[in-house]
Amino acid sequence: MNQQLALGIDIGGTNTVFGIVDHRGDIQYRGAISTKKHLKIEDYINELYEAVLPAIEQVGGKAAIRGIGIGAPNGNYYKGTIEYAPNLNWKGIVPVTEMITEKFDLPSALTNDANAAAVGEMMYGAAKGMKDFIMITLGTGVGSGIVANGSLILGHDGFAGELGHTIIIPNGRQHWGTNAKGSLEAYCSATGVRLTAIEMLENSKTDSLMRNYAKEEIDSRVVYDCAMQGDVIANEVYAFTGDILGKALANFTMFSSPEAIILFGGLCKAGDLILTPTKKAMEENLLPIFQNKVKLVFSELKEADAAVLGASALVWEMKS
Amino acid sequence: MNQQLALGIDIGGTNTVFGIVDHRGDIQYRGAISTKKHLKIEDYINELYEAVLPAIEQVGGKAAIRGIGIGAPNGNYYKGTIEYAPNLNWKGIVPVTEMITEKFDLPSALTNDANAAAVGEMMYGAAKGMKDFIMITLGTGVGSGIVANGSLILGHDGFAGELGHTIIIPNGRQHWGTNAKGSLEAYCSATGVRLTAIEMLENSKTDSLMRNYAKEEIDSRVVYDCAMQGDVIANEVYAFTGDILGKALANFTMFSSPEAIILFGGLCKAGDLILTPTKKAMEENLLPIFQNKVKLVFSELKEADAAVLGASALVWEMKS
Repeated sequence: MNQQLALGIDIGGTNTVFGIVDHRGDIQYRGAISTKKHLKIEDYINELYEAVLPAIEQVGGKAAIRGIGIGAPNGNYYKGTIEYAPNLNWKGIVPVTEMITEKFDLPSALTNDANAAAVGEMMYGAAKGMKDFIMITLGTGVGSGIVANGSLILGHDGFAGELGHTIIIPNGRQHWGTNAKGSLEAYCSATGVRLTAIEMLENSKTDSLMRNYAKEEIDSRVVYDCAMQGDVIANEVYAFTGDILGKALANFTMFSSPEAIILFGGLCKAGDLILTPTKKAMEENLLPIFQNKVKLVFSELKEADAAVLGASALVWEMKS
Repeated sequence: MNQQLALGIDIGGTNTVFGIVDHRGDIQYRGAISTKKHLKIEDYINELYEAVLPAIEQVGGKAAIRGIGIGAPNGNYYKGTIEYAPNLNWKGIVPVTEMITEKFDLPSALTNDANAAAVGEMMYGAAKGMKDFIMITLGTGVGSGIVANGSLILGHDGFAGELGHTIIIPNGRQHWGTNAKGSLEAYCSATGVRLTAIEMLENSKTDSLMRNYAKEEIDSRVVYDCAMQGDVIANEVYAFTGDILGKALANFTMFSSPEAIILFGGLCKAGDLILTPTKKAMEENLLPIFQNKVKLVFSELKEADAAVLGASALVWEMKS
């Protein structure tokens, strides 16, 4: 039982969730604290420690914990830092693993949330046993984690895998945050889906259940609900979104030739409504030698657990 | 002196060149045979063996050779095969390393020409000591070799790194071979440059030295010569080509965050005419965290030697 457990911590803009996880991906203890309320990182780490300590004691004390894995926006694996994260209170470069390790007296590793999700999928989910795959997270933003030759691609600076910001439609829709035109995230994030729905409603006279909502009320959830009821325009939103996602996945495939591309996040709820047009556009844009080879699948991790599982999986990757 | 040399073989559509290379990248012996004249792979390998044997004897016999590295179009590293290469006489799947190793009684490894170029650059050239970089070959076609975490990205099937076929301009120029619309190769290969020049001449009334040539005579060489003489349209061809290349390199950077991108091949002769617009478009399309970080440089290997050096470098990567 010695050192057979991992503490996984997922730092989100609003909340931080944590869990103690075993080798099979079973979460033995769960908890959460607010991220947002702490203006100072020191206060945040103190509260986190107080919240986690009972969990550690319950599983047999620090000796039972091999290490701490942390997923965080703009997390840098090499340096263990969070750097200039727009949605967190702590500005500049925050030396998170140094502070966590000092406080908890346990080794720690950190990476961005999408990389953590990829490692989680490799350890416990749909990518078990794979050496080459790409994880795409389709949530508020579009993130990615790329594994090649069995290792995360981190790049020379630790920031590799920002596939949401690659340009798929040059001079296309302007991104509300980065100002780039035509990036994947501008179309395939929750905000992107919302903007597509609003544009389609404005440019068409077709009846739609979505017309029962005020413009401000329309979001990816409304699109989903209406599509499920057979709404034509809502279905077109998914067809359009999938077409762009599929084009992007074709380019990614010609980069690293993955065995599988794993989709995760809110957009996946739409099931075949999103998967079918994505797969079609992907295959159409691939060179023949890549066609009908790449498995396009949804994550096998429960959405509520995935972030903590991903973070915890970093621990099993630790060298020591 | 035992096993301190590598035999590098580059199989091109027309000719095969080979050389015996030491650890520093000095070529001790050079030779070449025709690829094209051999309709049967067996005849080709017999002639290759006869041509190489004197070289092997001159450097001290087989005991001085650690192994054979081979670069070839559509070469698959995992299987040691050439698969469905459109420009070679041998159709289908050819088990090249098996046949070479049997004939020469030496271990052999094979990969595609752009991957070999990347390994050569890492061993002897501009990428010495780098663990993360991308090699782009700008010749008749556009090839690429990607190194991450110190290893070639080969993908689950050995075909990774076909960046020339990624779509940069959706619904753009149709590729003469693949029929895909808007791929990098459709614009940034020698043929792409030629087509851009012809289009620009047809769509403009501006004076140009290129108008002294018949349409069939215009090629990347003519564009280069005219640009060097200050021709406005020829210079615009490079500006346009560099803009598309730069957009592509921005996307590639957000994938693997390389320390450097190394350009190789005919188009590099244009120097700053191509480098300046490429760099500009690349930086403009990068997320800020990637800006002004990636070195964009030309290969340091002599063009005539690069293919053999790249192939030979595979030998130093061999496990045994």
